[in-house]
Amino acid sequence: MTFAPVPRVSPGDLVAVVAPAGPFDRESFDKGLQVLSRRYRARHDAGLFAAERYLAGSDARRLAELQGAYDDPQVRAVFAARGGYGAMRLLESFQVRRAVPLIGFSDLTALHAVAQKAGHRSLHAPVLTQLGTQGAAVVERLFATLESPAPAPAFQGLTTLVPGSVEGPLLGGNLSVFTRLLGTPYLPALDGAVLFLEDVGERPYRLDRMWTHLALAGVFRRVRGVVLGDFTNCEEKDGSHTSTEVLTSLARETGLPCASGLPVGHGAVNVPLVLGARVRLDASRGELTPLEGLVA
Amino acid sequence: MTFAPVPRVSPGDLVAVVAPAGPFDRESFDKGLQVLSRRYRARHDAGLFAAERYLAGSDARRLAELQGAYDDPQVRAVFAARGGYGAMRLLESFQVRRAVPLIGFSDLTALHAVAQKAGHRSLHAPVLTQLGTQGAAVVERLFATLESPAPAPAFQGLTTLVPGSVEGPLLGGNLSVFTRLLGTPYLPALDGAVLFLEDVGERPYRLDRMWTHLALAGVFRRVRGVVLGDFTNCEEKDGSHTSTEVLTSLARETGLPCASGLPVGHGAVNVPLVLGARVRLDASRGELTPLEGLVA
Repeated sequence: MTFAPVPRVSPGDLVAVVAPAGPFDRESFDKGLQVLSRRYRARHDAGLFAAERYLAGSDARRLAELQGAYDDPQVRAVFAARGGYGAMRLLESFQVRRAVPLIGFSDLTALHAVAQKAGHRSLHAPVLTQLGTQGAAVVERLFATLESPAPAPAFQGLTTLVPGSVEGPLLGGNLSVFTRLLGTPYLPALDGAVLFLEDVGERPYRLDRMWTHLALAGVFRRVRGVVLGDFTNCEEKDGSHTSTEVLTSLARETGLPCASGLPVGHGAVNVPLVLGARVRLDASRGELTPLEGLVA
Repeated sequence: MTFAPVPRVSPGDLVAVVAPAGPFDRESFDKGLQVLSRRYRARHDAGLFAAERYLAGSDARRLAELQGAYDDPQVRAVFAARGGYGAMRLLESFQVRRAVPLIGFSDLTALHAVAQKAGHRSLHAPVLTQLGTQGAAVVERLFATLESPAPAPAFQGLTTLVPGSVEGPLLGGNLSVFTRLLGTPYLPALDGAVLFLEDVGERPYRLDRMWTHLALAGVFRRVRGVVLGDFTNCEEKDGSHTSTEVLTSLARETGLPCASGLPVGHGAVNVPLVLGARVRLDASRGELTPLEGLVA
């Protein structure tokens, strides 16, 4: 399976900010918007700041906003304001009718999957409300990825969990959200892929349960390798075991080449990663090399 | 789909206690064993008390114990010592070669699913380490269900979430565990079923995420109705929304007859419930009536 690049973005282009998942505070939004507006013309619906329980407004509101941004040819990129939870609730109605860069992570894993299902690459990267706290290097790399077809530099110094070297399209995202696509029509074609996973706030036995779900669903018979990002705040409080030892055991059970330590996810640094783009994972050397970029 | 009754148990019969999931403390075990031993001859492997991280010993140990109990024709019932996590890890190896009553809940939802997959009924009921703290009424009903083919009395006074009346085999169990079977070969045939769900320690947005997983996997197009047990410790700490209001919204979205308040799950009272047995759910009247028992 190959995933097509999406059209490139240029400085000054119109981009849309949407909130298909959880609500967020205005201050983080304003800071992020300031960063984004240095480069692009950002627009958002007036209803973006809605909050109903754990959602940024009703399903109808979030869907109309997302679909509207996707369907408007003037919009050259779609940025998620925040993850949290809620994108999954839109999957049965949302339609990808156009190739456009989608930017976000965590709960947005569900929308990335739909983009990949439509055959497009997309950008696993900080949400808008994080842009104000991510360093300049991450922001520069985000803009560069949107504007140039060049693959990003390789990640080095990863930890080898299972040695071996493989190539394939990079797919995945947040473990909790990605596993919620198993058994649904929204799981992208995983055959031959390198699976990327990260998570936050999940105890080790829950990581095991989700990983075992992937195993029972046959995912590790389909993908070629696994690369792990941050597993933030995933430790057992009593210290009896660590997420690192549990993930290491789980990786070894798959027998697939696997490396950990990618600076991607819910940690302080969340480096952009192109989903659907081919990568080389050399787990023996601790390297992940992007072979393709996001845009044409 | 119909599920066959399993052979009945008689006082004095040999029964096995197994620990296919998490480790447990010896005191709760001894108290439960005392209750069980008043009625049956209980045996267990010497390795039952093993503990490795969150598991009651290695996968190999837990599998050998479980498979051994299932395969020994002298054993007339298989009681789980505790839930927690770990039964899922055995699914690819465990084989149901005989109809025998299986007793447990929570993480054991994974084993119930395998029993139902094999066409058998099984017993959603307290694990052994809870028998000492469950009231006499629950224990008596547990024994009666194992020993007599008579259906249990109806549950009344349930809360109507969506009115309507349906009949079908009762399937399901713990929401967290049951949804981890989606997309795997271990999900039982749900067509025409009444789906039972309970959970513990899951925030409302997580209940929504799991329920939405069921929806996206097409479960609510297959089952006829839904009945909810206890959702223990599932409240948002800031009180901004409750599990009850979230579950009520979710139930209404399905449009299926749905009632809540079954005294089953992780609350103080965990009344036995026969999975695979036909029930009538009259959500309008707030009644769940078992139409079949566990045993022949």
